[in-house]
Amino acid sequence: MEKKSELIENLMKGKMKLREIEKCTDNDSNEATKIRREFLEKKYGMKLENIGKSIINFNDANNRNIENPIGATQLPLGFAGELKINGNHAKGKYPILLATTEGRLVAGMARGIKLFNIIDGITTTIIKDGMARAPVVKVKSARDAVKLINWIHSKEAFEFFKDEFYKSAKYAKLKEVKAYTAGIYVHIRFKSSTGAAMGMNMITIASRKAIDAMITKVKKELGLEVTFISTTGNLCADKKPAYIDILEGRGVSVISEGIIPKKILKEMFRVTPEMVAELCRVKCLQGSALAGSHGFNAHIANVLAAIYIAHGQDPAQIVEGSQVITDAVVVDGDLYVSCFLPALEVGTYGGGTKRETQQEALRLLGLYGEGDDEGKTRLAFAEVVAAACLASETNLLAIQAAGELAFTHGTLKRG
Amino acid sequence: MEKKSELIENLMKGKMKLREIEKCTDNDSNEATKIRREFLEKKYGMKLENIGKSIINFNDANNRNIENPIGATQLPLGFAGELKINGNHAKGKYPILLATTEGRLVAGMARGIKLFNIIDGITTTIIKDGMARAPVVKVKSARDAVKLINWIHSKEAFEFFKDEFYKSAKYAKLKEVKAYTAGIYVHIRFKSSTGAAMGMNMITIASRKAIDAMITKVKKELGLEVTFISTTGNLCADKKPAYIDILEGRGVSVISEGIIPKKILKEMFRVTPEMVAELCRVKCLQGSALAGSHGFNAHIANVLAAIYIAHGQDPAQIVEGSQVITDAVVVDGDLYVSCFLPALEVGTYGGGTKRETQQEALRLLGLYGEGDDEGKTRLAFAEVVAAACLASETNLLAIQAAGELAFTHGTLKRG
Amino acid sequence: MEKKSELIENLMKGKMKLREIEKCTDNDSNEATKIRREFLEKKYGMKLENIGKSIINFNDANNRNIENPIGATQLPLGFAGELKINGNHAKGKYPILLATTEGRLVAGMARGIKLFNIIDGITTTIIKDGMARAPVVKVKSARDAVKLINWIHSKEAFEFFKDEFYKSAKYAKLKEVKAYTAGIYVHIRFKSSTGAAMGMNMITIASRKAIDAMITKVKKELGLEVTFISTTGNLCADKKPAYIDILEGRGVSVISEGIIPKKILKEMFRVTPEMVAELCRVKCLQGSALAGSHGFNAHIANVLAAIYIAHGQDPAQIVEGSQVITDAVVVDGDLYVSCFLPALEVGTYGGGTKRETQQEALRLLGLYGEGDDEGKTRLAFAEVVAAACLASETNLLAIQAAGELAFTHGTLKRG
Amino acid sequence: MEKKSELIENLMKGKMKLREIEKCTDNDSNEATKIRREFLEKKYGMKLENIGKSIINFNDANNRNIENPIGATQLPLGFAGELKINGNHAKGKYPILLATTEGRLVAGMARGIKLFNIIDGITTTIIKDGMARAPVVKVKSARDAVKLINWIHSKEAFEFFKDEFYKSAKYAKLKEVKAYTAGIYVHIRFKSSTGAAMGMNMITIASRKAIDAMITKVKKELGLEVTFISTTGNLCADKKPAYIDILEGRGVSVISEGIIPKKILKEMFRVTPEMVAELCRVKCLQGSALAGSHGFNAHIANVLAAIYIAHGQDPAQIVEGSQVITDAVVVDGDLYVSCFLPALEVGTYGGGTKRETQQEALRLLGLYGEGDDEGKTRLAFAEVVAAACLASETNLLAIQAAGELAFTHGTLKRG
Repeated sequence: MEKKSELIENLMKGKMKLREIEKCTDNDSNEATKIRREFLEKKYGMKLENIGKSIINFNDANNRNIENPIGATQLPLGFAGELKINGNHAKGKYPILLATTEGRLVAGMARGIKLFNIIDGITTTIIKDGMARAPVVKVKSARDAVKLINWIHSKEAFEFFKDEFYKSAKYAKLKEVKAYTAGIYVHIRFKSSTGAAMGMNMITIASRKAIDAMITKVKKELGLEVTFISTTGNLCADKKPAYIDILEGRGVSVISEGIIPKKILKEMFRVTPEMVAELCRVKCLQGSALAGSHGFNAHIANVLAAIYIAHGQDPAQIVEGSQVITDAVVVDGDLYVSCFLPALEVGTYGGGTKRETQQEALRLLGLYGEGDDEGKTRLAFAEVVAAACLASETNLLAIQAAGELAFTHGTLKRG
Repeated sequence: MEKKSELIENLMKGKMKLREIEKCTDNDSNEATKIRREFLEKKYGMKLENIGKSIINFNDANNRNIENPIGATQLPLGFAGELKINGNHAKGKYPILLATTEGRLVAGMARGIKLFNIIDGITTTIIKDGMARAPVVKVKSARDAVKLINWIHSKEAFEFFKDEFYKSAKYAKLKEVKAYTAGIYVHIRFKSSTGAAMGMNMITIASRKAIDAMITKVKKELGLEVTFISTTGNLCADKKPAYIDILEGRGVSVISEGIIPKKILKEMFRVTPEMVAELCRVKCLQGSALAGSHGFNAHIANVLAAIYIAHGQDPAQIVEGSQVITDAVVVDGDLYVSCFLPALEVGTYGGGTKRETQQEALRLLGLYGEGDDEGKTRLAFAEVVAAACLASETNLLAIQAAGELAFTHGTLKRG
Repeated sequence: MEKKSELIENLMKGKMKLREIEKCTDNDSNEATKIRREFLEKKYGMKLENIGKSIINFNDANNRNIENPIGATQLPLGFAGELKINGNHAKGKYPILLATTEGRLVAGMARGIKLFNIIDGITTTIIKDGMARAPVVKVKSARDAVKLINWIHSKEAFEFFKDEFYKSAKYAKLKEVKAYTAGIYVHIRFKSSTGAAMGMNMITIASRKAIDAMITKVKKELGLEVTFISTTGNLCADKKPAYIDILEGRGVSVISEGIIPKKILKEMFRVTPEMVAELCRVKCLQGSALAGSHGFNAHIANVLAAIYIAHGQDPAQIVEGSQVITDAVVVDGDLYVSCFLPALEVGTYGGGTKRETQQEALRLLGLYGEGDDEGKTRLAFAEVVAAACLASETNLLAIQAAGELAFTHGTLKRG
Repeated sequence: MEKKSELIENLMKGKMKLREIEKCTDNDSNEATKIRREFLEKKYGMKLENIGKSIINFNDANNRNIENPIGATQLPLGFAGELKINGNHAKGKYPILLATTEGRLVAGMARGIKLFNIIDGITTTIIKDGMARAPVVKVKSARDAVKLINWIHSKEAFEFFKDEFYKSAKYAKLKEVKAYTAGIYVHIRFKSSTGAAMGMNMITIASRKAIDAMITKVKKELGLEVTFISTTGNLCADKKPAYIDILEGRGVSVISEGIIPKKILKEMFRVTPEMVAELCRVKCLQGSALAGSHGFNAHIANVLAAIYIAHGQDPAQIVEGSQVITDAVVVDGDLYVSCFLPALEVGTYGGGTKRETQQEALRLLGLYGEGDDEGKTRLAFAEVVAAACLASETNLLAIQAAGELAFTHGTLKRG
């Protein structure tokens, strides 16, 4: 190995690329991490000592989670308590961990958990499951597009796609293939369960291969000229707010619910069911309608961000994941609350769940997905997320109905 | 101080609350963090040693960033290179750090940076600036609502609101107050610059106080009965995808752009400007239109998530922040690319920027906002974000136009 | 019969209701029409002589199209020429009639027709067909909602729904039943073809009856308590712009297309394919994206309004019908244009097609649907509409690309 | 004049164009109308006798409302009763006429009118007024776009635009000029009141001229190269559902409201305020949210279509006009109802109001706009429309809450 100082010198002079360091460290990425960091320290004349205190083993991580690592970002991790859940897969008490720098988020969750544990927990129900990827192809005419679509929607095509899909995606179960067009482009949306993994990579590869095979087949059998355009044409829709994800679902579609007796609501929050229902209506429904919003809720994105980061999920997927309808209505004098989450794209194996701290959080839940080919841990984890969302939403709505956003969001804490 | 083991025992038995530990540690939150973690370890019979290796000083953090801390979540931090930016406030080369577990994100950014550095960087321009908060009140009739709105839109009211606003928000500059109604509820959207801070808390408090004062005033002077309903009625719109943020802006509205010569595009990506423009059209525009999406881009949420987390921003705000229009058109035979980002709610002081590793990242950019009352570092940081988005988007679109999503998103790396 | 003057006197004095006149005219609605009109004339001291010159036979119409008639509104009807169409059902030349008061609309259509007839017409292709109605019911919990949804999506349920549906709807063919929930309400979207009729009434009755039967059945067999809430909960979605209609279709989903040689475009409009494609991109895609619009086209609503009114369609259904994606791209140097119309809710029998002038227009097309149980005339008429839309859109985009909106929209005609 | 039969022969043989007939009839368009119709009759071997019974004087109409007329389409016109309105401009009782072929629409309106007259009418309030047109231009860079936008938003520019605007639009009052960009295109939205006219043509011409003048000015004074692209880039947004129209308003923004005592609701509809409020919530808010709709109401498009057609308005503008929020909430035990209509683009002079039957309807209201330079009749008419909408919506929601959509929509009338 060259001497560290020489490598740093080479980086300073631009003689070497950042990603070439590993070649000089016998592929020791931890060592390379240190070198890149020291280069930055030297170049900018400042210490990165906190970033340097990473416990991440980049020798394992390099091929999967990041390139050119220089250390780690640390986010405070808080424990909001154990939430009782009566789900299809999640059954019992689950410790809720949140990684966040948003003051009062953990405290608000803790209050929500306390509330629901009093009434014996939150009920969660899976509606459907299936990660989606939608490559786009080009044809000669809209008439050809419709011909292609009709074939894609045939039973024969579905069997064909399954065969092709499973060649690369062994834990996948293809659920649906739907095609859309607006002219000479055809978007083909594959939807598949993905074992314990969130599955984006799995079905990206599988759908790409299925499309390649389809192009050959329809050329030969139907005489259709089809050109591959892109692995995705935004009808997936990944990491974008989109109605297709609300209507069709993406990842796990799940709903969480509970009934808060009037008396308990009064004692804990000094509000009536009617006050919370009115606020939910004017804010989550009418306010969002006026704003042109896809998010009919109070602050789901906060909860998703904190719980996704803590458990190694992809934080960019809170964009579509937070397209949630939170409901609060008066039923027989008590408060019925629910969260409908159409697109929780979560995984309990692979991706960020490999990382040291994130995996510990998943293991604490008892939901690390190693060996779970059927993805039951993934479904259970989606239920935990959905339940946590409801706990936090209910608390925030009740707090706001009492006129005190500040209490939860930390604005008064300085007073 | 009670003995640690006793405290843990009390937690196990439910005799003590998680948030009460600090009381028994002379408010030493670092010590309390350890106790809560050990309680969890004992209860679940597993070690949380990686979560425990936090370098965060919770004695400083407790009141601001989190409650009930038990340690930290660590995310890999990668260095994608230095990006040249010609902005209104950001001028020169900026090191781009990304905290992510998404393989190939840093590599793709690095390629985008390389591309733009060849052509002398990315131009960024600030369109507008102003964080928004929209409390909601209730009146007796829609006619009263319109009376109230007309007053709110008067010059007199604006002066009044400024006075009230500045009582609590000393770094704020109130830009606009706009009111909306759909019946007996009136939503009042305050928009204000916020110094170096992202400013959500600042303007939440200030707008709440302004509303309280308004209620008294309009009762007395206009005879209007106004009831406070909530500090927010979702017209802000915070952490939700919403057209009001696209049309009105929220936080910093900024645009980044560049022209890629045909020749360079060919050499680096084996594609023509026409191919990239076609893909951008079918995907970012038509595909998103078909999908019912607010996100007319390739993968902005990925970039925002990684750069927000690395620099102590609120990751939940990528929801509205990623409502971005990425454009790629052929101009004089070359490829013109741009990203319009209407809602970058960022800050360089306060909030998550206080955290150890995040602050180092901001300091490396030279944009930690301590002492920056005018918020120039905040605007410069928004430009860095916008430039990084364009670098990554251009790379991804070019890669996809070449038929190789896999190359960037890691699907082929296993092959 | 009482004397006319007495009846009018009674109306003046409020002793009689408007809808009671028929009782005094031996159910002669034409006579009653005259009386109501004369009452208005007397009361307001003005003549309604033009409204009075109606040729409508209200004795036939009364039970179907209107109550309390007083005459007719007359709209100018123009003939834009015969358009050649190569459709799935529409084959040959069709006379295009437009009822409008929008100057230059007929002229623009005429130019579009001329353009497409030169290149041998417009190709139209049916994508799918099915009118939708979505009643909403209430259950005890979201868990019950999911149970109900799972049953609704079963094969058994589909057979059950078909049986119930066909009891009242003899020309219907049930295509799909899809259920949605966001808590304790379940929306059940029935989709069915409807013979020659537009079919709203037909499937409203049929789906109401199917729901009533379902409520009894699931109570007995699954123990589910389901309460009927409303015949529609806005997931149909009728007469509202809604993404569910774009993604799922409503009525006829059809696409029209053509390729305009560069030379012809130049001669007729003095523009290049590139100019039209650029305008379509910046306007129909990017402009609409920025505006938060569901309408990715130039002026489809104009065409639909004029053609719907002329042929006895429901003009309120242009709201969802105009959610159209118009595309114009350069292909091999020429201009490819298309209109994707996901929701043309048209009929050739029943409703407004009974009216004298409207029926003549349909008969002129050879598409009056009497006796057409399979609805082929309806599909053909949808293709005529789609083709007319493309003719008009192409003309307008070409005109605008040439910088002359005024030319088509009449702004210069005064010069 | 050539003999009619010769002209028809020439048309049959394609020797003559449809629009050339007037040249052979000494510009007698009524005569030309007859000839074109007879040509069609001959060609298609059928009589168009009803279409022929037009009372429209095309000699007056030809230059304004239509080209190539062949007669008229007649729609049944019904009288639903006189509705009491307490508006800003509409004060007193107004006869509500509807042109429709939708059975039970008039009957439902009549019931709504009866309901509101019992409680002394509907209150309407104007929120704002201003027709909008948004031309689009192209610049060299986004940085230039922002420069241009900053200038456009200056006071100087507003004065400049007013001067240019008023050169052609003498009844206009320019209210606002707002610019938007997403790259190198800039959309400039002019908003102006328009006297008694709906004003689309007026401000199309005026904004086109203002843009032309701007291009010259900013070239000279700011050195900005600006190219005109189109008179509209869809940010107007005309005849498309779009959030910009909801948030910014277009035409008249108006709100109608009333409070229905519990007792009256019970007597007339056999429902409670709570039942109607629940239905409105689940349907107009939650249902529309789930459907991805911009229309948060029951059936506004029906009412707009019928009232627009009867009074010479542009029926295509019901698309954006029907983006209405209907609200129904329980207040002090009674039912508060309101309709917020952000975009009623109506006129009482010019356009379709010139037509014989339509003008009679406007005159009956006392709101024909001849000589009304300030547009008070237009504002009053918008209030009549808004009040009629509320009457019909309230009736339909109450009917549906009682489980009887059929009663209003005619589905049971056959039973």
